[in-house]
Amino acid sequence: MKSSAGHFFEDFTLGRVFTHAGPLMVSSGDVSLYRALGGGRHALFTSDQFADIATGYAATIDPLLVFHVVFGQTVEDISLNAVANLGYAEGQFSRPVRKGDTLRAVSEVIGHKENSSGKTGIVYVRTTGLNQRDEEVLSYVRWVMVKKRDEGGLAPEPTLPALRAVVDMGKTGMFARTYKGWNNQLAGSQYRFEDYEIGEKIDHLNGVTVEEAEHQIATRLYQNTAKVHFNAHDQAASRFGRRLIYGGVVISIARGLSINGLGNAGEILAINAGTHAGPLFAGETVYAWSQVLDKAELSETAGALRLRLVAVKDRSCEDFPLRGDDGYWAAIPRVSV
Amino acid sequence: MKSSAGHFFEDFTLGRVFTHAGPLMVSSGDVSLYRALGGGRHALFTSDQFADIATGYAATIDPLLVFHVVFGQTVEDISLNAVANLGYAEGQFSRPVRKGDTLRAVSEVIGHKENSSGKTGIVYVRTTGLNQRDEEVLSYVRWVMVKKRDEGGLAPEPTLPALRAVVDMGKTGMFARTYKGWNNQLAGSQYRFEDYEIGEKIDHLNGVTVEEAEHQIATRLYQNTAKVHFNAHDQAASRFGRRLIYGGVVISIARGLSINGLGNAGEILAINAGTHAGPLFAGETVYAWSQVLDKAELSETAGALRLRLVAVKDRSCEDFPLRGDDGYWAAIPRVSV
Amino acid sequence: MKSSAGHFFEDFTLGRVFTHAGPLMVSSGDVSLYRALGGGRHALFTSDQFADIATGYAATIDPLLVFHVVFGQTVEDISLNAVANLGYAEGQFSRPVRKGDTLRAVSEVIGHKENSSGKTGIVYVRTTGLNQRDEEVLSYVRWVMVKKRDEGGLAPEPTLPALRAVVDMGKTGMFARTYKGWNNQLAGSQYRFEDYEIGEKIDHLNGVTVEEAEHQIATRLYQNTAKVHFNAHDQAASRFGRRLIYGGVVISIARGLSINGLGNAGEILAINAGTHAGPLFAGETVYAWSQVLDKAELSETAGALRLRLVAVKDRSCEDFPLRGDDGYWAAIPRVSV
Repeated sequence: MKSSAGHFFEDFTLGRVFTHAGPLMVSSGDVSLYRALGGGRHALFTSDQFADIATGYAATIDPLLVFHVVFGQTVEDISLNAVANLGYAEGQFSRPVRKGDTLRAVSEVIGHKENSSGKTGIVYVRTTGLNQRDEEVLSYVRWVMVKKRDEGGLAPEPTLPALRAVVDMGKTGMFARTYKGWNNQLAGSQYRFEDYEIGEKIDHLNGVTVEEAEHQIATRLYQNTAKVHFNAHDQAASRFGRRLIYGGVVISIARGLSINGLGNAGEILAINAGTHAGPLFAGETVYAWSQVLDKAELSETAGALRLRLVAVKDRSCEDFPLRGDDGYWAAIPRVSV
Repeated sequence: MKSSAGHFFEDFTLGRVFTHAGPLMVSSGDVSLYRALGGGRHALFTSDQFADIATGYAATIDPLLVFHVVFGQTVEDISLNAVANLGYAEGQFSRPVRKGDTLRAVSEVIGHKENSSGKTGIVYVRTTGLNQRDEEVLSYVRWVMVKKRDEGGLAPEPTLPALRAVVDMGKTGMFARTYKGWNNQLAGSQYRFEDYEIGEKIDHLNGVTVEEAEHQIATRLYQNTAKVHFNAHDQAASRFGRRLIYGGVVISIARGLSINGLGNAGEILAINAGTHAGPLFAGETVYAWSQVLDKAELSETAGALRLRLVAVKDRSCEDFPLRGDDGYWAAIPRVSV
Repeated sequence: MKSSAGHFFEDFTLGRVFTHAGPLMVSSGDVSLYRALGGGRHALFTSDQFADIATGYAATIDPLLVFHVVFGQTVEDISLNAVANLGYAEGQFSRPVRKGDTLRAVSEVIGHKENSSGKTGIVYVRTTGLNQRDEEVLSYVRWVMVKKRDEGGLAPEPTLPALRAVVDMGKTGMFARTYKGWNNQLAGSQYRFEDYEIGEKIDHLNGVTVEEAEHQIATRLYQNTAKVHFNAHDQAASRFGRRLIYGGVVISIARGLSINGLGNAGEILAINAGTHAGPLFAGETVYAWSQVLDKAELSETAGALRLRLVAVKDRSCEDFPLRGDDGYWAAIPRVSV
């Protein structure tokens, strides 16, 4: 049979490299859809003019859209048979991506470990997103629980990669921006680097209800074909008996909500950690809150906030409920500018 | 708390100016989404070639899309706590907007009046849409009912702006077009300026059922974040206990339906008056009819029709049911061309 | 009344030519929406760089999107009162369509035959899609069952066009491509022309559940306004008492699924035959399988497969259930490359 049912645990031998299919030229169509489907509307990415004046650097794509596009290309090879998408680490945006750039993805198996049940195992891959000049634009590690093809088969020696809890910002590559001409009013926030304190929590207040059509359209935009997101008929497609919303959709909605309180922190530099702490289904409503975990000065005109972004469903965030332990670094202009 | 719960009646002091966040470069992605989500498909805006031959002027954006984009940027400041969006007047499209132009919005408070309940008040703002050269592309007045922060607080002296019932067409700015090379067949209508009579009514016949996903995607396309449109979980988000469809979505659907009977009247010059006479919810079906209220000769080759466009739900328009009293001016080629 | 209720059987006199309204400049926004709504993601059409290296020819639009755009423009004139859309034949893609090209459509009545009931008749039209230089990009025949305006009226002499069962590939026009630099990994398939055998069947495995919002957005993207797809309120809008999904939406979803097994056969050259064997409604799940009906060598570097693509709903394709008898020619690189 020429069609593929995806890879199984046994296929993920240590060091194996997958060159994923589906190179995508990211266009203004993708950018409009990303905004309309619940993603970001940070001024850095909605207006080239704003970005050019604010940072001397325009027409880049929201890093989270870059992440979803690269991730989507890996699904056919890595996670078509995933039981669960467990986590992310060491995500670094190495180079800006502009409209018209073409993204492709390569993944290397850097760890694997059979589960005690003997039916599944955990696979670690490092995925690299490349542009049309084969330059790295993104790198991240993710781990997924995958079914074994042969439950009685021999398991490989467990190998777990050593992962840093926080990305070294010296390795991220978007700091060419000066943040010199930043405009608080157009960005929608009066708060800059110096205004945030470590430990501070921000309730983003609003909630967004997600529809089946919305998450399916978004997930296809990213070329993510995992049947768990699309097939309501095949009971085996999802262990929940219904379509599961792609975790990236949730991340983008939460990030979109975070503009209310973090409007100046548009540029994600790194994803330190990410966990899908629970499933989201159509008809449910996403709320989000953020906490400032750390701060770092980047230059005379820019700083970075290390942020935990927590998304919950069908309840407000006024008491800052904790699920998972995610975090990312985002650049933000300094008051001194 | 760094997130904002929006402004209240007391915040709208006379003469206060809001420079809204969220400048948007309008792209071909936005144009495609606008068409696909239920908006216009007038040939002037679907084909640059048609527009160029017909009017010597191509690549402009549908004025209603311009309106929604400018309106959307005002929501965070003006109507996040609006109880009801009451009406529009003096809407003038001053300059064409082309793909690649960047729109931003500024609003000035021009009137306010506390309601007798003491719990709410009506606020009048004049909103101006500007392009990347700070040139005005659109100006309109709208009034909204907004909650008071402090119900017992003192009310300001009532001030109501004087509003013209019909826009003076000398103030609109899109007449550079000659309408010399108009093609009835490609535009989808055999009727020109001279064929319409004052008082004439046109049933646009078809109906369109609206889904939650559709109106949410459209409303986010316009960067309109009002929770009343997006949050099905928080009962306080909507006084209807369910998501209310943004009125601009209804206007665009009705305008799209009006192509059947008014296919040559693609270019809106002015919005004289607009009222949201009742709510629309997902699952309901929009029908529309139009009436010619007035006519004006613009040039040798173009005229303008003053039109009332009425949208109703879950019933046909064969008996021309009247809700509200809306109207706009649209340019249309003359027979003499 | 200036609005149109569409044409009836009596209006389709032999030889009558319709110049359809709605010329559309196909943009990157349309391309992104097509992918996100369930259409193709063949690398030939997602990456100009891939296409350029693989074939020396980049930036073309997926032929199925071209088909839907041309088809959509014909609906107002041809099938607004169609009882059923019966079939297609002799579909030939004569010239590539690139982003920025503008498509319009012309149809000629080439056959008609009253049904024995005296209430309806079958109309055959040949539709031609033209670009902005009036060059043919697509030609196809379709036949629809249309209501008579006057049930007792005289019927015309029956005239049935002679239609070829399989398109002569010498008449298709996309062979400029060399397929010299094809990359299996990026295209997502290791199988080339020589790997497929006549008679071979391929189950595409996955299924996609379709939502009301998705098919409505897609159908509007193609400017197809048939009320049967959009109006849930008017019981007369659909003989099924509910919105019928546009058949083109089903074709595109099935074609998208076929990437799993036919990833290298991205370029459709001709549509030999097409039948809508049954209705699809929102909430139902589309599965698909393909059969290789024939093979043809095109050049040193490319061959063509004649494929039957069968879409079914709410059941898997592991036993290759047969509905209809559709088929198309698709180019595919040869092993010798």
